[in-house]
Amino acid sequence: MHGLDDLKYDADGLIPAIIQDADTHEVLMMAYMNKHSLAESIKTGKTHFWSRSRQKYWMKGETSGHTQEIREITTDCDADTLLIKVKQNGAACHEGYRSCFFRRYEQDGQWKVIARRLFDPKDVYGKK
Amino acid sequence: MHGLDDLKYDADGLIPAIIQDADTHEVLMMAYMNKHSLAESIKTGKTHFWSRSRQKYWMKGETSGHTQEIREITTDCDADTLLIKVKQNGAACHEGYRSCFFRRYEQDGQWKVIARRLFDPKDVYGKK
Repeated sequence: MHGLDDLKYDADGLIPAIIQDADTHEVLMMAYMNKHSLAESIKTGKTHFWSRSRQKYWMKGETSGHTQEIREITTDCDADTLLIKVKQNGAACHEGYRSCFFRRYEQDGQWKVIARRLFDPKDVYGKK
Repeated sequence: MHGLDDLKYDADGLIPAIIQDADTHEVLMMAYMNKHSLAESIKTGKTHFWSRSRQKYWMKGETSGHTQEIREITTDCDADTLLIKVKQNGAACHEGYRSCFFRRYEQDGQWKVIARRLFDPKDVYGKK
């Protein structure tokens, strides 16, 4: 395998990218890249994604300052998923948690918040 | 949030599930579940998926014996991705590696194999 053309993108030209903290190994988030945002990530050393809901490019931390510095990019056996290890500045989740995966499934069927908020989103992103 | 109906499935009824080793914190693989395979995973304590390429249900390890015993299921802020921590028996990757993410992007643009094969797929899955 060589380069970014050998990856398998979906019908919309996207590939899911799992973002993992390089130090704590915590899985922080998953978001989608296309070839352009991946190339930009490689070029700048900071994660860039394609937002499916907003239909635009975004750099993680462009508003919050909570950027992700890329340490390693791997792909899987099918070359249709990326795993990117990063140094996370601040918190990954726009809801104020370090990881987006802050709700755990309990035996009673509830999704329980198991993490602590590090910041109030209103303070970082402003009121909407 | 309550139950499996509050998750956001895509147009095909699928939700991506990141599988992480509960002990080593290594990300092992990503595969897709639908509501039925997730319910089956919860009921049995072993990961079940929906194969997009084969259009069928599968239990991880049904052929190889390399099952995944579920320790924790979390979801993210958007409730459209799962992170499942497991005890991995054997190896997660059907190519014989412990993790599917065994190729790293190098500065020269090559994807270099950075892991060691634990088994020969032919010995486990038979010749195709």
